[in-house]
Amino acid sequence: MKKKKSLNEISWEELKRLSLSEKGIYFQSDPLHTLIAQQFSRQQIEQLCTLATKIRQIAKQRAGANFLKTLLTDKRAMLYFAQPSSRTYLSFNSACQLLGLSTMDVRDTKTSSEVKGESPEDTLRTFSSYTDLIIMRHPEGGFCERVAWMLSHTNRAIPVLNAGSGADQHPTQALLDIYTLERSFENHGGIDGKNIVFVGDLKRGRTVRSLAWMLTLYQDVTLYFIAPDSLQIEPDVLRLLDEANVAYEKKSTLDSILPQADAIYMTRIQDEWDAEHENTTSSMKNFCLNKTNVEQLKSTAIIMHPLPRREEISTEIDNDPRAMYWRQMRNGMWIRAALILTTFQREAEVESYYTNNKHPLS
Amino acid sequence: MKKKKSLNEISWEELKRLSLSEKGIYFQSDPLHTLIAQQFSRQQIEQLCTLATKIRQIAKQRAGANFLKTLLTDKRAMLYFAQPSSRTYLSFNSACQLLGLSTMDVRDTKTSSEVKGESPEDTLRTFSSYTDLIIMRHPEGGFCERVAWMLSHTNRAIPVLNAGSGADQHPTQALLDIYTLERSFENHGGIDGKNIVFVGDLKRGRTVRSLAWMLTLYQDVTLYFIAPDSLQIEPDVLRLLDEANVAYEKKSTLDSILPQADAIYMTRIQDEWDAEHENTTSSMKNFCLNKTNVEQLKSTAIIMHPLPRREEISTEIDNDPRAMYWRQMRNGMWIRAALILTTFQREAEVESYYTNNKHPLS
Amino acid sequence: MKKKKSLNEISWEELKRLSLSEKGIYFQSDPLHTLIAQQFSRQQIEQLCTLATKIRQIAKQRAGANFLKTLLTDKRAMLYFAQPSSRTYLSFNSACQLLGLSTMDVRDTKTSSEVKGESPEDTLRTFSSYTDLIIMRHPEGGFCERVAWMLSHTNRAIPVLNAGSGADQHPTQALLDIYTLERSFENHGGIDGKNIVFVGDLKRGRTVRSLAWMLTLYQDVTLYFIAPDSLQIEPDVLRLLDEANVAYEKKSTLDSILPQADAIYMTRIQDEWDAEHENTTSSMKNFCLNKTNVEQLKSTAIIMHPLPRREEISTEIDNDPRAMYWRQMRNGMWIRAALILTTFQREAEVESYYTNNKHPLS
Repeated sequence: MKKKKSLNEISWEELKRLSLSEKGIYFQSDPLHTLIAQQFSRQQIEQLCTLATKIRQIAKQRAGANFLKTLLTDKRAMLYFAQPSSRTYLSFNSACQLLGLSTMDVRDTKTSSEVKGESPEDTLRTFSSYTDLIIMRHPEGGFCERVAWMLSHTNRAIPVLNAGSGADQHPTQALLDIYTLERSFENHGGIDGKNIVFVGDLKRGRTVRSLAWMLTLYQDVTLYFIAPDSLQIEPDVLRLLDEANVAYEKKSTLDSILPQADAIYMTRIQDEWDAEHENTTSSMKNFCLNKTNVEQLKSTAIIMHPLPRREEISTEIDNDPRAMYWRQMRNGMWIRAALILTTFQREAEVESYYTNNKHPLS
Repeated sequence: MKKKKSLNEISWEELKRLSLSEKGIYFQSDPLHTLIAQQFSRQQIEQLCTLATKIRQIAKQRAGANFLKTLLTDKRAMLYFAQPSSRTYLSFNSACQLLGLSTMDVRDTKTSSEVKGESPEDTLRTFSSYTDLIIMRHPEGGFCERVAWMLSHTNRAIPVLNAGSGADQHPTQALLDIYTLERSFENHGGIDGKNIVFVGDLKRGRTVRSLAWMLTLYQDVTLYFIAPDSLQIEPDVLRLLDEANVAYEKKSTLDSILPQADAIYMTRIQDEWDAEHENTTSSMKNFCLNKTNVEQLKSTAIIMHPLPRREEISTEIDNDPRAMYWRQMRNGMWIRAALILTTFQREAEVESYYTNNKHPLS
Repeated sequence: MKKKKSLNEISWEELKRLSLSEKGIYFQSDPLHTLIAQQFSRQQIEQLCTLATKIRQIAKQRAGANFLKTLLTDKRAMLYFAQPSSRTYLSFNSACQLLGLSTMDVRDTKTSSEVKGESPEDTLRTFSSYTDLIIMRHPEGGFCERVAWMLSHTNRAIPVLNAGSGADQHPTQALLDIYTLERSFENHGGIDGKNIVFVGDLKRGRTVRSLAWMLTLYQDVTLYFIAPDSLQIEPDVLRLLDEANVAYEKKSTLDSILPQADAIYMTRIQDEWDAEHENTTSSMKNFCLNKTNVEQLKSTAIIMHPLPRREEISTEIDNDPRAMYWRQMRNGMWIRAALILTTFQREAEVESYYTNNKHPLS
């Protein structure tokens, strides 16, 4: 493994050739940017989760919420969403508002000067003039990395936060999933040693891939991948798990695994990537949760879903106390607030407020 | 009449079957939501008007405006506008800003996950995770009620504020009209006993229907409906007035009624609902105000219009002191601010500031 | 030259007939509105530049940035952008955020009631009800003037700030260009006496026209216009320079002028206005800056460009210390903040803070 170098000491061609793990090393040494799930160490993840919980508890009281709103009033962020996404956009926007961070939107990139023949790098460098942070969603894989690399070679290198790029990376989705697991198992020994079951379309969902990687940072977890053969998890993920000595099992039926599960991570069919989705949909009927099979779950188990869902989770179980998917959304807001605050290195102010004030129980 | 029940004690099927007056009783007992004009009592309306005036007077001074901006800094609101409407959107957005309430917009619902096959209920429940209030405009009648009902059955029941749904309900428009009347007649005995004249397309305008209902809460008002036969007020409104013992008269010419009028409420032809609008437009020429017929109005009479207008009010009278339609717009901002503050039960803080500080005259 | 009159003492027909210089006199006497480059005196420009620099220096520290954010919290602005423009929009939005001025957007005018047959004047008068300042971009030349004139005849005459109207006027672009020159020559004797070289499509670019006019306010400047014959500067600009006794020269090659230049102002081909742009593009190849010809520039010379660029500036020189085009963007934000603050007559509060606090060097 290479010695750590900073992002502005590497050429773009060299960076492009690196594996995800190798990139992780570069981005970890330059904590300015959040680009890929692989850049986080377990220690960093745990610090973010602890910070998210403190922010959440402080926000419950009016005085606390008003304190949080003073933390980033001197900064401004741009939400550059070249790809439509209401929920990720709203979650980030909410996180910014909680911290008093002003935001500006660029959502329809057709209104930008890209139409006047400007290069994407010029557009982003111009936009970066007006702001202190770019939160970016883009349809092109690797675009966020390119912008972060480009800005790191200018004299105004502001942080870039990847809010989803291409089919591959959505690191804050992985963080919010881990935070939901951490929070749910807080009084049950944490994530170590748990059985995590992934169900549905595991081939194409980027959330499963990133979360599986992040789970290699924990001890004695076992992963179960439940999917029809045509939608099973890809070999590269399994290779990664092998290298990290993580136990896993592939199965094609859900029911037998339910009694052992600590967390069930349901996913939606990504038929926007699929040419023959009608067939896929019919085959998915065996990979759904409903009032009957949910009875087999432990009372401490949790049900997750990145949302939006279709039929894979019946609405009958929406108010089951084990259904975490709505809370998962809100967890995304808290962990993103923690990440943004850490990007600006202001987390100590929350620690200090937390120590000096009483908080409602979570 | 049924005994008051709260919104989460009734099934959706049961709620749907109720009349507007019956629904009003439910929504009044659950003051979290603002859904229909019929949920307001005269006392509630008068409290909102008084509060709106205090907010307006406090806002005139820099210190006062800055005080108002501290009232809701710990809260966040979502402006969910599935139907285009610049002026209602801007009015609500302004009201939120006056109170320091952060806002997020969802204006183009095509960018939301509705396109991924999600149910509207799931979309709204997800969006509700990120916010403390949903201000909602929707083309479908009853949609706001459905969302309010759905949220009232979850463990995070945030308030829903109807900013116009379908062809029927736009309760804050009715409130701003009442506030304009209250404010204009403040030194002339209030709304009781006044002659209110509605002119134009009375068949299809929802503002007229809601305002007529609200006027039944006042004493000795007389309503005049001036329209061509094909666009006259519908029988259900007249039945309501009969039940409430409100005097009214239908007429097909405007001029004879002008000398008695205390308020003239002009309306636009809603030809977006009309297949044969050219004929309608020509017949409307007899239902317009201009420099000549305005001379017949009392000096204390007022001219209202929900805007946008076409030819039904001549621009020659825009600067007549009796022309209230521009001020009416601004009144909408003040009454909406009062309503939002009341939704969060913070109105006492304005009362207290008002008592302890001097204010410019209105 | 006419005696100064205020904007509400003149009819629209009379105003329309005036020359730009004559209009400048009217708008200067009514400092509420910012409509055309010609309304600024040298003294006003210098005051704005000084204020912009103080704002910029105060913003470098957290306490300073937080102070700036208190200056306009009691006010609200509308960004009415009927014509797409990401960078001008973002620059103004940033300037507002720096001063704590809340903003509302109207960007897609199709969602406004213009579709319901409302006149543009009514739309703007309605929108003006909700706000304390309108920052407006519009495709129609003179539209901002019309709105300012219309509002000045109502009882709620809020300021209008032209953010680009039609092909002619974009006064804040001219201000940011002058501020970039002022700042760059701060320690080299200021703008007086400098050689300013304009290159490219000088026929159609409104930035060049406005900046040329503003440069007539300085002493002993010499202007060089380098363009192919078909895209040379128009005679009306030259006539203006003649009247103001400003020296200038037209040339068709760039290289010979480079050693004398104090500032090179590069421009993009405006082929959105052009039917035969392919020919134009090929002829432009002789009017570009690259690593080789930049060597002929003085070490103190600066390179400007309003952006977006195409091939007229090679990306090789982006990190040359003389390349000012990225900083120029950021200068736009500072000078716009200064202008907005001056519009609300709050500039003295910055002066006072500046005097009482220490600042990092620029």
